Amino acid sequence: MKNVNASIVTIGDELLIGQVVDTNSSWIAQQLNKIGVAVKRRIAVGDSYEEIVQILGEESKNSDIILLTGGLGPTSDDITKTVLNDYFGGKMVVNEEALANVKYLFEKVFKRPISAVNLMQAEVPDVCDIIQNKRGSAPGMVFYKGNTIYISMPGVPYEMKGIMEDAVIPLLKEKFQLPVIVHRTMLTAGIGESALAEIIKDFEDALPSEIKLAYLPTYGMVRLRLSTSGFDKIAVQKKIAHYFDELKILAKDYLVTDADEPMQVVIGKILKEKNKTVSTAESCTGGYIAHLLTTVPGSSKYYEGSIVSYSYNVKETLLDVHENTLNTFGAVSEQTVKEMLQGLLEKLNTDYGIAISGIMGPDGGTEDKPVGTVWMAVGNKENHQTQKINLRFNRERNIEVTGMMALNFLRKFILAN
Amino acid sequence: MKNVNASIVTIGDELLIGQVVDTNSSWIAQQLNKIGVAVKRRIAVGDSYEEIVQILGEESKNSDIILLTGGLGPTSDDITKTVLNDYFGGKMVVNEEALANVKYLFEKVFKRPISAVNLMQAEVPDVCDIIQNKRGSAPGMVFYKGNTIYISMPGVPYEMKGIMEDAVIPLLKEKFQLPVIVHRTMLTAGIGESALAEIIKDFEDALPSEIKLAYLPTYGMVRLRLSTSGFDKIAVQKKIAHYFDELKILAKDYLVTDADEPMQVVIGKILKEKNKTVSTAESCTGGYIAHLLTTVPGSSKYYEGSIVSYSYNVKETLLDVHENTLNTFGAVSEQTVKEMLQGLLEKLNTDYGIAISGIMGPDGGTEDKPVGTVWMAVGNKENHQTQKINLRFNRERNIEVTGMMALNFLRKFILAN
Repeated sequence: MKNVNASIVTIGDELLIGQVVDTNSSWIAQQLNKIGVAVKRRIAVGDSYEEIVQILGEESKNSDIILLTGGLGPTSDDITKTVLNDYFGGKMVVNEEALANVKYLFEKVFKRPISAVNLMQAEVPDVCDIIQNKRGSAPGMVFYKGNTIYISMPGVPYEMKGIMEDAVIPLLKEKFQLPVIVHRTMLTAGIGESALAEIIKDFEDALPSEIKLAYLPTYGMVRLRLSTSGFDKIAVQKKIAHYFDELKILAKDYLVTDADEPMQVVIGKILKEKNKTVSTAESCTGGYIAHLLTTVPGSSKYYEGSIVSYSYNVKETLLDVHENTLNTFGAVSEQTVKEMLQGLLEKLNTDYGIAISGIMGPDGGTEDKPVGTVWMAVGNKENHQTQKINLRFNRERNIEVTGMMALNFLRKFILAN
Repeated sequence: MKNVNASIVTIGDELLIGQVVDTNSSWIAQQLNKIGVAVKRRIAVGDSYEEIVQILGEESKNSDIILLTGGLGPTSDDITKTVLNDYFGGKMVVNEEALANVKYLFEKVFKRPISAVNLMQAEVPDVCDIIQNKRGSAPGMVFYKGNTIYISMPGVPYEMKGIMEDAVIPLLKEKFQLPVIVHRTMLTAGIGESALAEIIKDFEDALPSEIKLAYLPTYGMVRLRLSTSGFDKIAVQKKIAHYFDELKILAKDYLVTDADEPMQVVIGKILKEKNKTVSTAESCTGGYIAHLLTTVPGSSKYYEGSIVSYSYNVKETLLDVHENTLNTFGAVSEQTVKEMLQGLLEKLNTDYGIAISGIMGPDGGTEDKPVGTVWMAVGNKENHQTQKINLRFNRERNIEVTGMMALNFLRKFILAN
């Protein structure tokens, strides 16, 4: 049985001038992988008639499935529908179902007056099947030509995701006989990519060729992923489990989780299991750690809140850091984060807490404490630990890496205390 | 004079299974656009020998410049260097400059022991020019073939950015005679894409063909972008300024900024100009607004901090919300956000404040207050305003859109008070 391949084509001038980051194609790739469709390529092109036509021709040679997003908006820079209509030799007709959907959305959901431009969203080529878009006015469209299936979706991520989940995934499962693709991913922290590679070198050399190992660095941590595919689901899962277990033992000193889940989810699970709570006192990360923790649904079960103390004033009044400490040691010091932690645990009365203070840049560094200097303290009412890290990135990445390192420091403290 | 085209090729299996979002290619596209290189395509392929070779052949027909990222790591899944060596008919040699850099980085910057795998990073094809990587161990590589220039860079964003800024951009400016590409972007809020399109319909219909207008929806706001290119810089800028000014007048009721800058930067500028401070009290956004505000360098000048009150307890103890208010009206109510705001302004003593409480989902909704219900209050010591919004997205997007709508609400209050 042959593999089923897909190409993901995202359309829009904004992608070529870099005004937006394309999150659609990675999300689509994830969904396709889950059902055993191998993504061969992801391509971004502009809102250009000739370019879109060229890509449709090229990718029909590479792939069985071509998924397109973007260029379906109501405004004149959106041309995907016109190109597809011409390419597949159709003519534009009003689709009654799509029209009813547009009217429903504007009257009942958006509660905005409907315009002629909006109504035109219900016009589609007469040579496609349409997919209802419950989250927006532009329907999805499905075309068939030769052995290839072409599916066009809006570029708005929220709308595209609804169409993929409701219709595209079920359709592809029905049309193709798909292999099982299995990935197993673990997250490690506290070790670099090349040091990790040396630890698992013998394992890697001995891996059978049909199992692929990938190193995925992320915020100063490394994810390790094993992948393979086949048609016998149980056999494939069993085979990969064998190697995955071996890898877990090799990486055990650095293992955060053996699932493909982020650090904040891991911490949430540990806290729920222990029935404990946590709070945060953030200076330099400015609420980023609170944000990470609260992206997890149900985090209110264990997360109480944060005092984002960006100024000296807030450190003193809300966290009871002594003026004298700030003046003697500075805001970025072991003494300050210890007092921040103590104040936090008293004020928010949680089982665990973490306090951070540092210099994220580009300004604010000194000779003693250059940009990238960060102090952090984790603890409970009995114990605490502190650590100093030195980062060498730009502001954005310094905040992100500090957030992740702080959460890992917290995770280890919770497990040990 | 002909346009100079580029293709951006990102390499890595992780891109095809959607395990990471590709932020490199949008950033590279931005940099190329600034210097007048038109990006024709962005393509992501796996760590596959045949695929990389096929792409190199195809894109050499499309573009004058091919920029590649990824697949240069020290581990065995990284094959880009090998493919390039074969494709351009070279042989691998140790580059002394790159070797010195690897040694320097491990000894002085990373302060980690150096391994054989790391040292291999200094081996490069003898048919390329190398670009020093000051931020990592894999050097950039430049190949020439026919009329095309091929540049390979590491996939780690921080390293790639350093190489682009230090070497690639200057090199391209030197090798090509580049046109001026001018974009002018404004940010609007409080109006949908199609309603905005109707307001500016006549303007759009009358635009000369060489000026392109794009609508870029972002977190419930819409950016409008005019673009054009030419070889006479002053003439191009003048021409686009004329139309941009006209567009600003048409969009004036919804205009947030006439620069390509995010909401949080706009607010920072207004506060600095007025010499005022702000603080935040966040429940459902869980620190996201604080994070947005503190991504801006120098935000400590006007931002004092946040009380992230995720629990009833924190709302009561730190923000002095009455227990009675919470019990009678609930945490998601006008009364609660008003008391949160009042408590915030008293505790943090800032000129302005904003308080938010809502239900982000997927759980926690009720018939009265479904998921997506959000109350927010903005104010100073004299005045305040409240508003209720109803969102219909998933948790992640509900948090993001709430954050942006809250900042816009704050911005309007600051301008009026």
